[in-house]
Amino acid sequence: MALRLSMDEADFKALVEEIESQEGYRKPIAFGIARVDRGQLNPEKILQATFPVVNWNENFGSAAIFIAALQATGVEVDFSSSEFVYDVKKKFVKNAMNAFTPYLNLAFGDAHKNVQVIKALDWIAQTEKLKKEYRIVFLFEDDNPLSPEAVYLKLYALSTGKAPLRTVNLTGAFGVLENVAWSFGQPLELAWLREHEIEMKLRGEYPLIESVDKFPRFLSHIIPADNTRILDTSKVRMGAQLHPGTTIMPGASYVNFNAGTTGAVMVEGRISSSVVVGRGSDVGGGASILGVLSGTNGNPVSIGENTLLGANSVTGIPLGDGCIVDAGMAILEGTKVGVSATELAKIAEANPKAKLKKAGKEEMVFFKGLELAGLHGIHFRQNSVNGMIQATRSKREIKLNSELH
Amino acid sequence: MALRLSMDEADFKALVEEIESQEGYRKPIAFGIARVDRGQLNPEKILQATFPVVNWNENFGSAAIFIAALQATGVEVDFSSSEFVYDVKKKFVKNAMNAFTPYLNLAFGDAHKNVQVIKALDWIAQTEKLKKEYRIVFLFEDDNPLSPEAVYLKLYALSTGKAPLRTVNLTGAFGVLENVAWSFGQPLELAWLREHEIEMKLRGEYPLIESVDKFPRFLSHIIPADNTRILDTSKVRMGAQLHPGTTIMPGASYVNFNAGTTGAVMVEGRISSSVVVGRGSDVGGGASILGVLSGTNGNPVSIGENTLLGANSVTGIPLGDGCIVDAGMAILEGTKVGVSATELAKIAEANPKAKLKKAGKEEMVFFKGLELAGLHGIHFRQNSVNGMIQATRSKREIKLNSELH
Amino acid sequence: MALRLSMDEADFKALVEEIESQEGYRKPIAFGIARVDRGQLNPEKILQATFPVVNWNENFGSAAIFIAALQATGVEVDFSSSEFVYDVKKKFVKNAMNAFTPYLNLAFGDAHKNVQVIKALDWIAQTEKLKKEYRIVFLFEDDNPLSPEAVYLKLYALSTGKAPLRTVNLTGAFGVLENVAWSFGQPLELAWLREHEIEMKLRGEYPLIESVDKFPRFLSHIIPADNTRILDTSKVRMGAQLHPGTTIMPGASYVNFNAGTTGAVMVEGRISSSVVVGRGSDVGGGASILGVLSGTNGNPVSIGENTLLGANSVTGIPLGDGCIVDAGMAILEGTKVGVSATELAKIAEANPKAKLKKAGKEEMVFFKGLELAGLHGIHFRQNSVNGMIQATRSKREIKLNSELH
Repeated sequence: MALRLSMDEADFKALVEEIESQEGYRKPIAFGIARVDRGQLNPEKILQATFPVVNWNENFGSAAIFIAALQATGVEVDFSSSEFVYDVKKKFVKNAMNAFTPYLNLAFGDAHKNVQVIKALDWIAQTEKLKKEYRIVFLFEDDNPLSPEAVYLKLYALSTGKAPLRTVNLTGAFGVLENVAWSFGQPLELAWLREHEIEMKLRGEYPLIESVDKFPRFLSHIIPADNTRILDTSKVRMGAQLHPGTTIMPGASYVNFNAGTTGAVMVEGRISSSVVVGRGSDVGGGASILGVLSGTNGNPVSIGENTLLGANSVTGIPLGDGCIVDAGMAILEGTKVGVSATELAKIAEANPKAKLKKAGKEEMVFFKGLELAGLHGIHFRQNSVNGMIQATRSKREIKLNSELH
Repeated sequence: MALRLSMDEADFKALVEEIESQEGYRKPIAFGIARVDRGQLNPEKILQATFPVVNWNENFGSAAIFIAALQATGVEVDFSSSEFVYDVKKKFVKNAMNAFTPYLNLAFGDAHKNVQVIKALDWIAQTEKLKKEYRIVFLFEDDNPLSPEAVYLKLYALSTGKAPLRTVNLTGAFGVLENVAWSFGQPLELAWLREHEIEMKLRGEYPLIESVDKFPRFLSHIIPADNTRILDTSKVRMGAQLHPGTTIMPGASYVNFNAGTTGAVMVEGRISSSVVVGRGSDVGGGASILGVLSGTNGNPVSIGENTLLGANSVTGIPLGDGCIVDAGMAILEGTKVGVSATELAKIAEANPKAKLKKAGKEEMVFFKGLELAGLHGIHFRQNSVNGMIQATRSKREIKLNSELH
Repeated sequence: MALRLSMDEADFKALVEEIESQEGYRKPIAFGIARVDRGQLNPEKILQATFPVVNWNENFGSAAIFIAALQATGVEVDFSSSEFVYDVKKKFVKNAMNAFTPYLNLAFGDAHKNVQVIKALDWIAQTEKLKKEYRIVFLFEDDNPLSPEAVYLKLYALSTGKAPLRTVNLTGAFGVLENVAWSFGQPLELAWLREHEIEMKLRGEYPLIESVDKFPRFLSHIIPADNTRILDTSKVRMGAQLHPGTTIMPGASYVNFNAGTTGAVMVEGRISSSVVVGRGSDVGGGASILGVLSGTNGNPVSIGENTLLGANSVTGIPLGDGCIVDAGMAILEGTKVGVSATELAKIAEANPKAKLKKAGKEEMVFFKGLELAGLHGIHFRQNSVNGMIQATRSKREIKLNSELH
């Protein structure tokens, strides 16, 4: 049975309505068609899924067509699971082409991206068999991902910016993905390398390995904005999110998955998993922002806007806007920080909603780092005469210079 | 009209004199012929210029020939602008071959490099059309660069060591260069990637992207000295200058453009734009030397000879010879530094020309970091008993060990 | 003369015994057959040796066969030198095939790896001439390596884990290896690049250079364990040793040769040459562990198990199990460290064999870093109120979280 041809846009919409009205139908919160790389030894293992287009809480009409295009080839789509993954075959493509007919001539550039995918697959199918290289995945809930295709779809949602950082459920993703050797962007099973090591090495055909990891690199899947720069592909993991205008320098920098920037940020340090850095901030050379599982007791760290983390500084607490952490120092949850009565008043003024302990008779009031978390306009420094870590009201405005880097 | 054939060296020199005596002629301060990579979507955009040979205040005879070879094909060379860029065509090559005749058989190895370029182009032109792939650029002044070719020529001047660091005008270079994706050294327009993303991904032909940046990497254009080592190409940007014997390790190191070394230096940290490091110095693992726009108030930092920057230290002031900055500490312009009367006398002795504040009755004299800038033989340390940052007279001689790295 | 065919296993063993009983015979402590890359200009220079299999104090029977297979082709094996290297020719392969006959059908997977090498060479020799691409190397003593093949064999011994870290003599290795440009894992002579620079650049055929170094990268030669991850190939040098389960992140991390891990370790910092890190330890983002020639006075640093080096910390002394070095601080041999009487008692309890200076009447006892070297359960911190570097009894248990990275 084939999906019928849509005559025009109205007819297409009627078809979508018809599909969506079937019993048990659920609109997928996300879906997409991927080209997959399979295991060399075990082709049942999906090593990588490359999505030309991902949909995240959008394009429910296309989703309906894809579901019906599967059903029309005899596939029973299971709406009761959190996700559904299936092979993309020629008949599926034909069905989708039929349904998309009114849009075929409009699908160019930024318009009708899902239709463009189907058109490209139809074109490919005219000259070669669609082997087991293409997979379609639907997510009906943001539950723990069960398949590599679902993990990749979620990483795409983060890296394309369609889903905000920290909003996607990736629990268990490491258990779902294979650890593989990456050679020119292609994943190779380590066992396959071992099996062929002797012959490949003797023949001079041993592949060049760029990394061994479960995750691919951001730049192997994502095209950044025109004003975004990533000076070394190894520095940004797939699943990171970089706001346009962000620059990732090559020194000690790194952006892990589910971490990144929400504005133009100069990054020369480490943005660990779960960390979010705001517009105009500057992560200095070698600066470290700790992640949920590296010293923050599970509290994700957000850095506000126009905040400067000095070279080789370490931050384990959230910071507000216009803060400065001086070069070389570490401010952690448990760090005792001295604040003079005068500075405390200024800090309180800049943070009217904050409940801050009052100054007594002593010259310095002491806070734990965590008590100052998220405040604006704080300058953390170590007094170089007496070694005390102090917080004062930051005076300096932090500006990124677009010229230098 | 063709440029006439030179009969011998004397005839060649006469020809050069003739060319140079034309009205309005200016000797270019720099020139070179480049192979260019053009935009995939917009071929008018020059994305990269690769120079086999660059000339910087030298080889004025070859420059004259190149100018005349252009003029003889009807091109009007504008001497009034700061730079002049033009396509290299077959006729231009023929003209230059004619003029270079006395040198054609002598142009090998290190001799007559510009003639070698013309010979190679002549050879290429015999089997293929010189499309729009070759460009010649002349700089008549070291003004703000106006074209990508001029920017590249200047970066080459720095990276080949023909122009000393900080002597080349690169103002506005970032505005002239395109931000592109680099795939195996080839620049790709981001818009082109976007246009072909769906089809390339579905066909498994999406290119491997190494970086997204306006600048290429040093090693894509420059052959280092036999005893120079760069353990990772991403760590040195085009426009950096590395003196023979310099080693760039892969950990947290980075050398930006218009920055580098003037002697053999072991680099495991960051040499920011505008920073110059002297012979025998050691930039420890993760050490940061701040650049003009990252915390030095626009003062470029020079590091002298045989100076050691400890692991994870940060330096924001210039340092003289034989200094030590202890691991993990930061010395910035505003850092208050305590010096004992005894040590101050020793420091003064090592720096006879420095005007240093005198010790009074107190045990310690305090300086701002900037007041100690550029002094020799200073050891910066943080007293681990009382937290004070102190300067003493450095005793340790710093030697690089050629065996280890 | 050809080596005779072995009839069965007993016959093979008799043959081995016969070979080993020859006068002057020495069992090699290590041996292997490599495919070599030779200089483009000078083919006598070995630029790289790729071993499909290395033997380190093992497989003496195969060694005997290889020695006899050489001798049977008229080669005089010099047992008096510390190493012997020779070309592998077709006749050698035939001889070895004869001797290995009883094992030819058993040599698959992990069994009889040396026989697999010979079988593969025999197969290759059937269709092409074995030019000068294959070399066999025997080490009779662990003396200073004299040939690139011997250096590579030793690096393999370390990186495959067959030889423990710090047990292999690599003195002079830097003098034996050539500094070359690496392009897709292939070594290129710098002089060759220079000779062809003009033509290759003009033709658009200039090779992509990944690094310039004497050493290749670990991942170009070694297949890591299934649960080992190396997120960037540039971060691990050949000759490093990574215990299964180790993860090398891409930020500021680096593992030099003759350095590495003896258990699953999370590495986001630098493990310098000669450093060994124990199971369950965590080398935080940007943390530096100093090597024998970078600040430790030649004392190699070992880090125990379950020890945490905080982000951007620096360690110049050996540490025991369950230690913590706080983020951003440096503990070096000469660092003065304050310990309270109470904490000193706890530290002494955790280190019953250590001879520690006793507390007197003062509140704090002061130690030099070196005096605390190798102790268990110490927490190094800088008091943020008075700047004092202190050691207390570490309370926190350090666990690596397998989920995050």
